[in-house]
Amino acid sequence: MSTTTDRARTLSTREMAELARQLRVDSVRAADAAGSGHPTSSMSAADLMAVLMARHFRYDVDRPEHPGNDRFVLSKGHASPLLYSTLKAVGAISDPELLTFRKFGSRLEGHPTPQRLPWVETATGSLGQGFPVAVGIALSGKRLEFGDYRVWAVCGDSELAEGSVWEAAEQAGFEHLDNLTLIADINRLGQRGPTRHGHDLDAYARRFHAFGWHTVKVDGHDLEDIDSAFDEAASTTGVPTVILARTFKGRGVAAVEDKEGKHGKPLPDADEAIEELGGRREDIHVTPPAPPAVRRSHTPHRATVELPRYERGDEVATRNAFGEALTALGTARGDVVALDGEVGDSTRAGFFAKEHPERYFECYIAEQQMVANAVGLAARGWVPFATSFAAFLTRAHDFVRMAAVSGSDINLCGSHAGVAIGEDGPSQMGLEDLAMFRAVHGSTVLYPCDANQTARLVAELADRRGIGYLRTSRGESPVLYGPDEAFPVGGSKVLRSGPDDRLTVVAAGVTVPEALAAADTLAEEGVAVRVVDLYSVKPVDRETLRRAADETGCLLTVEDHHEEGGIGDAVLDAFADGRDCPRFARLAVRIMPGSGSPAEMLRAAEIDAAAIVETARRLI
Amino acid sequence: MSTTTDRARTLSTREMAELARQLRVDSVRAADAAGSGHPTSSMSAADLMAVLMARHFRYDVDRPEHPGNDRFVLSKGHASPLLYSTLKAVGAISDPELLTFRKFGSRLEGHPTPQRLPWVETATGSLGQGFPVAVGIALSGKRLEFGDYRVWAVCGDSELAEGSVWEAAEQAGFEHLDNLTLIADINRLGQRGPTRHGHDLDAYARRFHAFGWHTVKVDGHDLEDIDSAFDEAASTTGVPTVILARTFKGRGVAAVEDKEGKHGKPLPDADEAIEELGGRREDIHVTPPAPPAVRRSHTPHRATVELPRYERGDEVATRNAFGEALTALGTARGDVVALDGEVGDSTRAGFFAKEHPERYFECYIAEQQMVANAVGLAARGWVPFATSFAAFLTRAHDFVRMAAVSGSDINLCGSHAGVAIGEDGPSQMGLEDLAMFRAVHGSTVLYPCDANQTARLVAELADRRGIGYLRTSRGESPVLYGPDEAFPVGGSKVLRSGPDDRLTVVAAGVTVPEALAAADTLAEEGVAVRVVDLYSVKPVDRETLRRAADETGCLLTVEDHHEEGGIGDAVLDAFADGRDCPRFARLAVRIMPGSGSPAEMLRAAEIDAAAIVETARRLI
Repeated sequence: MSTTTDRARTLSTREMAELARQLRVDSVRAADAAGSGHPTSSMSAADLMAVLMARHFRYDVDRPEHPGNDRFVLSKGHASPLLYSTLKAVGAISDPELLTFRKFGSRLEGHPTPQRLPWVETATGSLGQGFPVAVGIALSGKRLEFGDYRVWAVCGDSELAEGSVWEAAEQAGFEHLDNLTLIADINRLGQRGPTRHGHDLDAYARRFHAFGWHTVKVDGHDLEDIDSAFDEAASTTGVPTVILARTFKGRGVAAVEDKEGKHGKPLPDADEAIEELGGRREDIHVTPPAPPAVRRSHTPHRATVELPRYERGDEVATRNAFGEALTALGTARGDVVALDGEVGDSTRAGFFAKEHPERYFECYIAEQQMVANAVGLAARGWVPFATSFAAFLTRAHDFVRMAAVSGSDINLCGSHAGVAIGEDGPSQMGLEDLAMFRAVHGSTVLYPCDANQTARLVAELADRRGIGYLRTSRGESPVLYGPDEAFPVGGSKVLRSGPDDRLTVVAAGVTVPEALAAADTLAEEGVAVRVVDLYSVKPVDRETLRRAADETGCLLTVEDHHEEGGIGDAVLDAFADGRDCPRFARLAVRIMPGSGSPAEMLRAAEIDAAAIVETARRLI
Repeated sequence: MSTTTDRARTLSTREMAELARQLRVDSVRAADAAGSGHPTSSMSAADLMAVLMARHFRYDVDRPEHPGNDRFVLSKGHASPLLYSTLKAVGAISDPELLTFRKFGSRLEGHPTPQRLPWVETATGSLGQGFPVAVGIALSGKRLEFGDYRVWAVCGDSELAEGSVWEAAEQAGFEHLDNLTLIADINRLGQRGPTRHGHDLDAYARRFHAFGWHTVKVDGHDLEDIDSAFDEAASTTGVPTVILARTFKGRGVAAVEDKEGKHGKPLPDADEAIEELGGRREDIHVTPPAPPAVRRSHTPHRATVELPRYERGDEVATRNAFGEALTALGTARGDVVALDGEVGDSTRAGFFAKEHPERYFECYIAEQQMVANAVGLAARGWVPFATSFAAFLTRAHDFVRMAAVSGSDINLCGSHAGVAIGEDGPSQMGLEDLAMFRAVHGSTVLYPCDANQTARLVAELADRRGIGYLRTSRGESPVLYGPDEAFPVGGSKVLRSGPDDRLTVVAAGVTVPEALAAADTLAEEGVAVRVVDLYSVKPVDRETLRRAADETGCLLTVEDHHEEGGIGDAVLDAFADGRDCPRFARLAVRIMPGSGSPAEMLRAAEIDAAAIVETARRLI
């Protein structure tokens, strides 16, 4: 068969069967060349993929950025041999490149990532994440772009046990995402053995139907049956469609087909398997149907941001400043979108919702799907800010981790940080968030102490690459800075400084006013201490910290966070180059806090002004 | 009404109505005294609670540890005023104590926790977690205890958006937990406004039914209706039951009933509200039905553990040693249970499954429910070890955080740590796990480098309180220690040491052999360096690290983890007391890794022997 350059709809069923055969053979070859990988998980879905590419997936391979292109997500990322074999069949990669699978330096990693391959929308490999991100992309298509592209995701049956899948199913059903098709490759076998429901397609159909989906059951190895199902999905309106395909893992090779213990390893005898699959033949190329000739249907406006301005000395909660700044950002920039996990009243994302309802995504209490939506929206060029309590963003840790693998540019804001929230108690206190976000590759972690600083940092994040995190506080705090002061990422502010400083107190957020109060008390005792506001926790301002260390000889960090992984650790990063390190001590939350007033909680955790004074006296 | 000391079944409907009225009044009073809290969320469920306590919940208040007691979990933890009002009604706390709600030092925190109250099974307040833990408790009752206690959980409707709820529903349905009743307080209003499905009980019924549950719809303010539903739940066999109760938030007070904007705050006029509810009357006490007079039906055996022994010089993966040691532990101790997220072949938890299938819990790919099951099992006295890839334990971060709030004693093992896994690529590489687990309050974090050390540390964890974490590796590594060597938590091993050491290399896990190789290379160059195996990452061996610092003057940490929050930061913790700090430098994973062989990945991340040698030369 030669390359078809016009509509691929002309492919006969026999030709599609040839394509499927080649995808299986190439999956076997790729894993064999690598000495590892998941060929059997690829073989179960080869027929689904062949029909999709030949007849339904509208895509210009040479222009992955084409706004009319359909979008594809391989949620079962371990079936990467199938994806790469498909990329070969559509002419995106060569046969020699296919055989670099999993080798050092190859674009064809064990699991696909958009950092290396322009045809990949999002990194997968942590199960139950690709489908949720596909929902985010479909949301963009439906609510923001008004394009008519379709989103197709292929998932496995094992991953349907992940709760995140049902958060995604719920959001898609509720939002009537009829531009979304989920293709579930029900091959009945997971890594360790049979799945809960085996080949009981009805078990899955009941679940998706209950969540508001149209369901179609097919024999996943019957090309005509699959073709009809995809037609049905594309023509269904008002609800998303799931194709539940009954398949066999390792389909086509008796030594592995439908057998346990064959997950995640090359076939025992690749040559024999290829022979059994019909042998290698002349390579087939397939051209997917062409996308409609649409322009990008949205050209977001962009003007200068007029950030809110606060008067020095006023008392304003940083969460309020965040909400107001984000709203202003949304007014100036049409590409800024906001998402919240049904706590918008508290995070103040609700301010944005009121002003820009068309760009606000209520994700209800489903933090994983909230982050997945953000990743999907970012993949379509939007600049998302997703918010919840800092404590509850831990719920989405794996999604944030994978967003970094994707190279996704998303911003998160965690409110209600630390023991300073007071009466609500430890379940609501973000005390691990700095550690979590600092350890994410390439992240930016900001923790403002006043309203003007918060507003500036929100604007900074909008232009920053990678995962951005802003930590805000529940209670009011004094406005310390003027509205025109700049706060570059990677900087800090020296709030007290003199030639006789004998110690530097490094604080951020709610501990900044405590540090200032402590410095005043110590000054009355004749002890001069420097105070640094470390609003940029990552990257950290090495230069200022080193100068403080040189000039004062001792650093004391104080933070409303557990003692591991937070500000104390961030500060020491400035000295991790083998040069002299200053003496240092840290104040952090070492207790399991309870309920009480904010002041009582800061006292109990020994991170208030009194604790700073006491520790400073001991250190000097 | 006076206290009933015999079966409370004798309470009339009118008396139950009185009880419900009191629960509402006391909820209003508690929040009013606190000046914060969630009275309206309490009022919607007051009738459900009154009927449950008066007629269905079999419990000896004076003996919360009674093995025959039913178990209650308030999944909507913010409705704590209702729980505390109920505790008053059953005589567990006094009226003056009720009014200490949310005050500093009170046992009655903003959200309930078992650390303070013996009648609370698990800490709640992060929504969508209490119900999953209730499933874990019901699993214990059904599969391990064979008692006939019933588990009752009350959840809100907002939290049904959490994917974790559907992981729990799936596990309970699949395991036929007919000892479990979920009472869903469908009051239609979340924090920010209406929920997705409002009062559409059928929407929820369809979902639970699809997941294998018996569903009962009731008017949640009709006491007779509720009573019948609870009877139906208790008599349903083979499947769990969910009671879907149509309720109104703020029920009974017109100023707030079924109104938006009334979440999480005291009533505007408490006195007026109490009057509207019928006023304060003489306090009612209610005695729940007595539990059956059962003994603890399981007395786990306990013998000396015969750990596996490995020959020095052999090559053994630490994940294998983990699986073998855990199996041996299970043989010696009948209270040890194992759970895995359908990757038991890889984590080697499968070894335990083969030997002790009755104490093995397959949780499929649902890491949140896996940890919830562990917390539920620990609440019933078992010693759980839950396993997945280190990378995928991030999925359960919020559950681990809340387990610490509960004071739960659970152990987790994360396999496939770091870039050393090689070809599978970054989605499968645990590179944030040390940061995540170190920042959990009261946690223990262990990272063995060889098989004998792994076996010993597994045994150490079994006897340890709080959250225990063990990090294992995929590939084989040389056995460095003899089988009789002890590895106390909080210790370390000095593997190379001499009077002329000019630098200390601190390594753990896969970087220990790299550090030894580097030390050998440097020794050939005439440079003596000390090597410390920091197998206990938290708590850290301050004494050995300080001595190394004093004697060698410079520390170099090397770890297969991102540079934030891991071993480098753990080591510096030993110097955070204002004493002199040594010069230090760190080698850690600073790149976004791809695929390649383990050796290529260690090289690319610059954490191999060559990188250590090069850095050491620069530092000396």
